[in-house]
Amino acid sequence: MTIPFTLHPQLVADCHLIGRCGVLHLLLHRNAMLPWFIVVPETDVTELYELPESSRRALLDFADKLARFIKRHFVCEKINIAAIGNVVPQLHLHVVGRRSDDNCWPLAPWGHLSATRHYDPEELLRITEAIASELSVR
Amino acid sequence: MTIPFTLHPQLVADCHLIGRCGVLHLLLHRNAMLPWFIVVPETDVTELYELPESSRRALLDFADKLARFIKRHFVCEKINIAAIGNVVPQLHLHVVGRRSDDNCWPLAPWGHLSATRHYDPEELLRITEAIASELSVR
Repeated sequence: MTIPFTLHPQLVADCHLIGRCGVLHLLLHRNAMLPWFIVVPETDVTELYELPESSRRALLDFADKLARFIKRHFVCEKINIAAIGNVVPQLHLHVVGRRSDDNCWPLAPWGHLSATRHYDPEELLRITEAIASELSVR
Repeated sequence: MTIPFTLHPQLVADCHLIGRCGVLHLLLHRNAMLPWFIVVPETDVTELYELPESSRRALLDFADKLARFIKRHFVCEKINIAAIGNVVPQLHLHVVGRRSDDNCWPLAPWGHLSATRHYDPEELLRITEAIASELSVR
């Protein structure tokens, strides 16, 4: 018997669930100050290097496509990408769009945002629809 | 005529040069509070997704081996891995060993270390030798 995969409650609390692409769950951080996405593969390993080669490649290929989408859709200058996991051990990859006029440029986003903005429902719907059409996320 | 690759001066200022593995330059941050490595591929692109597939794979495979080395050699609980590049545009990958008793746990390392320690020459030599023997870095 396999235990069904569940997202870590902290990720659920912090993020909107945008959808899934196979075994990859795509989340969007609720703080709209940055276009801050999080990709969570269905796995119980906690380090990137512990993923089977095919799963690691699928995750990173998806992160590449997501990065291109973020850069274009949100007109960003740089992508910040990281697997940290000191607080939430469930393996997850941050893919964050950055602009030189954003709230914490040029600092890394983790622990440096000094303001919060919420997505309005129409904005969230537009992002979800754009991602669905470009990244096969359902 | 191709222009020879040179490391960004900020990386040279911040890091010890440990060696090279092919076109990957391995650096160690001078602040010894964390085992903080930086891998710099010889490229002029600035985003991971802009690397040719084979180069991206070589970089990430090396980062995997480096992460395993860091976890074992420095007895770490977690690896933090990131490509940020907001300050230094030259593409570089941070691979950082973390322990729950380190200086800024559980925060991400960027901008959160509150102390500085320098490696002594013997310590640096031991690390360099261990990496040379395990990761084919020269």
